[in-house]
Amino acid sequence: MNFAIASPDIALTAELQRKIDNKTKPLGALGELERLALKVGLVQQTLSPRLDQPQMIVFAGDHGAARAGVSAFPQDVTWQMVENFLAGGAAINVFARANGLGLSVVDAGVAHDFGPRDGLIDAKVAPGTRNYLDEPAMTAAERDSALARGAALARELAAAGCKVVGFGEMGIGNTAAASLLTHHLTGTPLADCIGRGTGLDDPGLARKRELLARAAARAGLPATATGGGEHALAVLAEFGGFEIAMMAGAMLGAAEAGLVLLVDGFIVGSAFLVAARLQPAIVDYAVFCHRSAEPGHQAQLAALGATPLIDLGLRLGEGTGAALAWPLLRAAVAFLDEMASFESAGVSEKA
Amino acid sequence: MNFAIASPDIALTAELQRKIDNKTKPLGALGELERLALKVGLVQQTLSPRLDQPQMIVFAGDHGAARAGVSAFPQDVTWQMVENFLAGGAAINVFARANGLGLSVVDAGVAHDFGPRDGLIDAKVAPGTRNYLDEPAMTAAERDSALARGAALARELAAAGCKVVGFGEMGIGNTAAASLLTHHLTGTPLADCIGRGTGLDDPGLARKRELLARAAARAGLPATATGGGEHALAVLAEFGGFEIAMMAGAMLGAAEAGLVLLVDGFIVGSAFLVAARLQPAIVDYAVFCHRSAEPGHQAQLAALGATPLIDLGLRLGEGTGAALAWPLLRAAVAFLDEMASFESAGVSEKA
Repeated sequence: MNFAIASPDIALTAELQRKIDNKTKPLGALGELERLALKVGLVQQTLSPRLDQPQMIVFAGDHGAARAGVSAFPQDVTWQMVENFLAGGAAINVFARANGLGLSVVDAGVAHDFGPRDGLIDAKVAPGTRNYLDEPAMTAAERDSALARGAALARELAAAGCKVVGFGEMGIGNTAAASLLTHHLTGTPLADCIGRGTGLDDPGLARKRELLARAAARAGLPATATGGGEHALAVLAEFGGFEIAMMAGAMLGAAEAGLVLLVDGFIVGSAFLVAARLQPAIVDYAVFCHRSAEPGHQAQLAALGATPLIDLGLRLGEGTGAALAWPLLRAAVAFLDEMASFESAGVSEKA
Repeated sequence: MNFAIASPDIALTAELQRKIDNKTKPLGALGELERLALKVGLVQQTLSPRLDQPQMIVFAGDHGAARAGVSAFPQDVTWQMVENFLAGGAAINVFARANGLGLSVVDAGVAHDFGPRDGLIDAKVAPGTRNYLDEPAMTAAERDSALARGAALARELAAAGCKVVGFGEMGIGNTAAASLLTHHLTGTPLADCIGRGTGLDDPGLARKRELLARAAARAGLPATATGGGEHALAVLAEFGGFEIAMMAGAMLGAAEAGLVLLVDGFIVGSAFLVAARLQPAIVDYAVFCHRSAEPGHQAQLAALGATPLIDLGLRLGEGTGAALAWPLLRAAVAFLDEMASFESAGVSEKA
């Protein structure tokens, strides 16, 4: 995977900050929105950034380990929810429509034959990953194919004029994979990275912990925040899933193309961790949208030094946290673009 | 003031919760949005609530005490910012446009003659309040007039089909009035209710504290959370302002008409405190939008037992916190209305 993501040139910072400070408001009074406006201005290297054609991409994939009992829901829910996305009835459909976001649905590796379908992007690597309790979830070739397909999708979006992309996912069992990735890529103890997912009860949670500890022991990879890109690639192949790998590729491709990334909760965050280990400057392109109720998300945020915009106790996935936070980013760019300055409005400044 | 606000009948709770729980998502996975959907359903007494014609009303007024030095900005900024609202260049204009909210601007008592102006509702009680360092900010008759005008404005909105209203304000010196109201209506020590407002430096903050302590001592009213409606009315007349009084009246009128209220930061919160002391059931109609960086707002939230939706370090006023949080409420009602159920989407339930 050859990505080359550089941090944006910060030479424009002072001029952007001056534009923000001259708006008709007390200095700093728009808080986090001022930092967002500055970030987007730097990404786009302009005093007048635009976030045209905002788009969500939802990646779906199945996990071999799901059949071993790491989730409260049966594996068929993955393809059934893809059908729900295509019919427009899932939470992410509702929130994307409400907030003016486009929505693409990608089959990254669902264990189901959809046939050719309007609105579904077929990028299936395989019909589900292998069971990481017994063997690596995917081969190096499958992983690289997933990353490349994701990057290609992001480049297509960029070529079509999209300036901001949010990431979502669906895959029964994918909080388990995200827990394993978070443990291995941050060094946080595995137990602290494991939560109830879609709603495990206490015995279910205990079983998930036991299974994931077995998977980690089988693979024998180090858990460390300083393993770099090769380590991240090894961890990704070991535990999956295809939707996470393809999302990581799409994040890398999008940042390379200068898009702003909307990154929300635990599973999307695990893909972002992989991307950040490969290309650390990607954090400069990311807006962290939502604090998930999953405990492992706190470990990710701590590792990235990130503070999300909102915290509403969501644990739904699908990119819902990104779709819900998007209007805040849109508002930040709108104030930079549309608000009057003290001078233009004839308002007196601070005495 | 004769208002009669009753808590919504909660008989519909179980049926609303069942509708929420049958949506294609893990139980409880939409967190705070589920509580919002339930709240709006109860306010409107329906399983299919609608939030038509969302509207912001921004009330502007001047404060006699502003000339004594309680603010970092000169008093003329009040009318200059009203001009900015009318020209569409203020933060609240930008955020209302971005998020599909209508916007009304009300002159509740600005010390400036605007003449007849398109887009400005002239409800001026007087050209600014009196200086509460020397005498009560307004008479009982002025206060009651402001409350009545506010309620009438809310009833007009309701009659036109509006189902949700957000409140904003502009008035140089009004964080000082809000501090005095918050102290007297919650019993919180005065010093803990006073912040930097639009940006006072340390000597400015010390001076504001000293002036407000003098004002409180002159008036000699008790500071208590249990003083009830008569006490709240006395405190309101003592410290003002007209924009706060008219906003409190509008909140009462809106809740009485069954509207949902968007309540954001410190000054709007002080008007809401007055309204809640007069009609405690109004809290059932309110969505608390934003946690202000002003310290006195924490005292208000604690007194009301309220947790706002977002916390972005804003301290701008104008109702910006409400306009920014509105898409979350809209999304909550949209999911209740538009999301598929497990049955309708053919998705398997939890094992």
